[in-house]
Amino acid sequence: MLNADHPEIQSWVSVPSGSPFPIQNLPFGIFSTKDSSPRPGVAIGDHILDLKAVHGLGIDLGPFKASDFDSSVLNDLMSQGKKAMTALRERIGELLNAGDHELKNHAESVLVLQSDAEMHLPVRIGDYTDFYSSIDHATNVGKMFRDPENALLPNWRHIPVGYHGRSSSIIPSGVPIHRPKGQTRPDAEKPPVYGPCRLLDFELEMAFVTFDGKPLGHSITTSEAEDYIFGMVLFNDWSARDIQKWEYVPLGPFLAKNFASSMSPWIVTLEALEPFKVRGEKQQPVVLPYLEFTGNHNVDIPLEVSIETETGASQVVSRSNYRYMYWNMVQQLAHHTVNGCNLRSGDMMASGTISGPDEGSFGSMLEISWQGTKPVQMPDGTERRFIQDGDTVIMNGQCEKNGITIGFGELRTKVLPAI
Amino acid sequence: MLNADHPEIQSWVSVPSGSPFPIQNLPFGIFSTKDSSPRPGVAIGDHILDLKAVHGLGIDLGPFKASDFDSSVLNDLMSQGKKAMTALRERIGELLNAGDHELKNHAESVLVLQSDAEMHLPVRIGDYTDFYSSIDHATNVGKMFRDPENALLPNWRHIPVGYHGRSSSIIPSGVPIHRPKGQTRPDAEKPPVYGPCRLLDFELEMAFVTFDGKPLGHSITTSEAEDYIFGMVLFNDWSARDIQKWEYVPLGPFLAKNFASSMSPWIVTLEALEPFKVRGEKQQPVVLPYLEFTGNHNVDIPLEVSIETETGASQVVSRSNYRYMYWNMVQQLAHHTVNGCNLRSGDMMASGTISGPDEGSFGSMLEISWQGTKPVQMPDGTERRFIQDGDTVIMNGQCEKNGITIGFGELRTKVLPAI
Repeated sequence: MLNADHPEIQSWVSVPSGSPFPIQNLPFGIFSTKDSSPRPGVAIGDHILDLKAVHGLGIDLGPFKASDFDSSVLNDLMSQGKKAMTALRERIGELLNAGDHELKNHAESVLVLQSDAEMHLPVRIGDYTDFYSSIDHATNVGKMFRDPENALLPNWRHIPVGYHGRSSSIIPSGVPIHRPKGQTRPDAEKPPVYGPCRLLDFELEMAFVTFDGKPLGHSITTSEAEDYIFGMVLFNDWSARDIQKWEYVPLGPFLAKNFASSMSPWIVTLEALEPFKVRGEKQQPVVLPYLEFTGNHNVDIPLEVSIETETGASQVVSRSNYRYMYWNMVQQLAHHTVNGCNLRSGDMMASGTISGPDEGSFGSMLEISWQGTKPVQMPDGTERRFIQDGDTVIMNGQCEKNGITIGFGELRTKVLPAI
Repeated sequence: MLNADHPEIQSWVSVPSGSPFPIQNLPFGIFSTKDSSPRPGVAIGDHILDLKAVHGLGIDLGPFKASDFDSSVLNDLMSQGKKAMTALRERIGELLNAGDHELKNHAESVLVLQSDAEMHLPVRIGDYTDFYSSIDHATNVGKMFRDPENALLPNWRHIPVGYHGRSSSIIPSGVPIHRPKGQTRPDAEKPPVYGPCRLLDFELEMAFVTFDGKPLGHSITTSEAEDYIFGMVLFNDWSARDIQKWEYVPLGPFLAKNFASSMSPWIVTLEALEPFKVRGEKQQPVVLPYLEFTGNHNVDIPLEVSIETETGASQVVSRSNYRYMYWNMVQQLAHHTVNGCNLRSGDMMASGTISGPDEGSFGSMLEISWQGTKPVQMPDGTERRFIQDGDTVIMNGQCEKNGITIGFGELRTKVLPAI
């Protein structure tokens, strides 16, 4: 398996030291340039390998059709399933290997500089699910809005709580969002009011992308789950806290969330993440058998969130880690399908806000500023309780092992005023 | 506009008396036969007009491509928008008019008997939203689970409460479902348990299907809303009440709903429903300006639910009406987009359970049997508190005016045992 456990493998493509995209990563995305329509590519160093161009050279890439490489989404490739995609990535690893010359002789026609490319949404997302699987986040929210002594709700340690989100408004890094408008009730003694959201927040999350699942009515077990997971992205589940507070009882978040969610452009495969797997927190009480699992399924992915103001002042506001998840991916997927719910290639399942145990590792401004009571000092002298118009929120995630960095690419979103 | 306000219009296709599909209806669907792949069709009497075949004759059908008529979903046609689809229906009305001979001469090559056809999901559904807009349903649920004296939650009369559902598990009429399994906590003093759902329920709903909306960040007003609505279907939002009770706080229904939702096969256009529009209940307190509307946007659609046992015993368990909705379609759509959320062709927005004011008009077994305390007597001597394995739930909806019937076609779903 090509990953950071094999730091000795090198590519004939020059990879700058510390690049998030060494040959041990090889994440998939959809890119375009001024000369080429959106199509599948694989990141390598500062470049993108154009898979349509590779296939066009007549080089064997496996059981895929030409049209699968001439698509504006990865779903066509992914419809071949996990084994085929894993083999495709291994094959690309061979072709990019320093010892291989088949592709190297065509370098100019198959490599595109990332700086010359625009990245697009990598998949057509059928359904988007958001979990709520960080115990520190759920505890913080419970402390703020419910009982500090009983912060976790009774079901929280028994089920990976989740809900359905909106897929139409998921956008890639670089696409700005507008501050949402909506109905809120700032004063419980007065009628609700309409206007731009006042408490705009990010949520630091990661999401995994699925393959086609089993037919409707059939479940996927925890031991089968990874066969249905392609890879992961950084995910910012934008949230309007004041809208959420007024609307969410009893059916959950709706307009507070569905105005936009942002994702990083490259899908980093589970194979690339394999060396970073770690054991999660011991789950107490013991879970029901369908949620039991073997092996390590948490992943040590250090995460960072910065806010950049319009004047260029930048401040790191969170350093968290995906390893803090209480419920892991295979449990989330087994729970999601235990009732027979089906999956489609390109479905996205997000973690929920990833908070760690200390203040510096909280994954939302709601928690960082503790409902606005502890403002963040910005280097330009201003303060942030929530996100202001003109701010850019930047998320990054990078794993490191054996001198190899496995990164996701930056997730950057600017907030524009309400329309 | 071709609808029941013009009962004098007749088709050269024979339409049996009382047929739900006279020339005044002309709903759109996707059908296949043993000789033809899934493709768009329009119901007329006992037949389906094969639009690919009509287009293949060289007959002008408007600004559509040949591939739009050779698709397994209506989204390609619908991507042309409301005006084009309204014109297409009017054009089909001309071609099927008793006074027209252009198509009549090719009747054998363009008409398929409905009894020879299989109906499919008519649209590729991007996102599915479920509202909670029946005041009688919300009141009944509030009485059962919260405070009978304050059954409606504080936000209910201010916002059309809604949440996102799962689109992958929406299935057409005729496709059976399996009883879902999952986690419940029947005894709050003991740990939760895993097993087949014990309280399986239907929800009598209707859903509307949208066209592409505005770009992300832009809102659709109540006066613009109908320009983005194609038509309506019957909808059964299957629900596992015991799973729902344990999982839904604080983020709303998830596995209790996403194992399956069933829809009727024909999309009945807003144009066909126009003569049945009625005024809704006066909304108190007055809504915020973005939810104000002019004109009548409730629709008088009598609805009926039956349960049929495996032995063939059948019992009507609900007679309701879509006119009972407190929040109407244009308010739902304006609310859904007020925060800038975008829409795509084929998105589906369901009403929520449609209950009327009296017991005979409740839209779920939860309400009909009042949490199981008032079982329904079946003609074979058995009782129903909720839905049993082997039961088939049948929903129908038909509007009548001027001797014309506008129907949706039956929505029929059999429940199989858990796998």
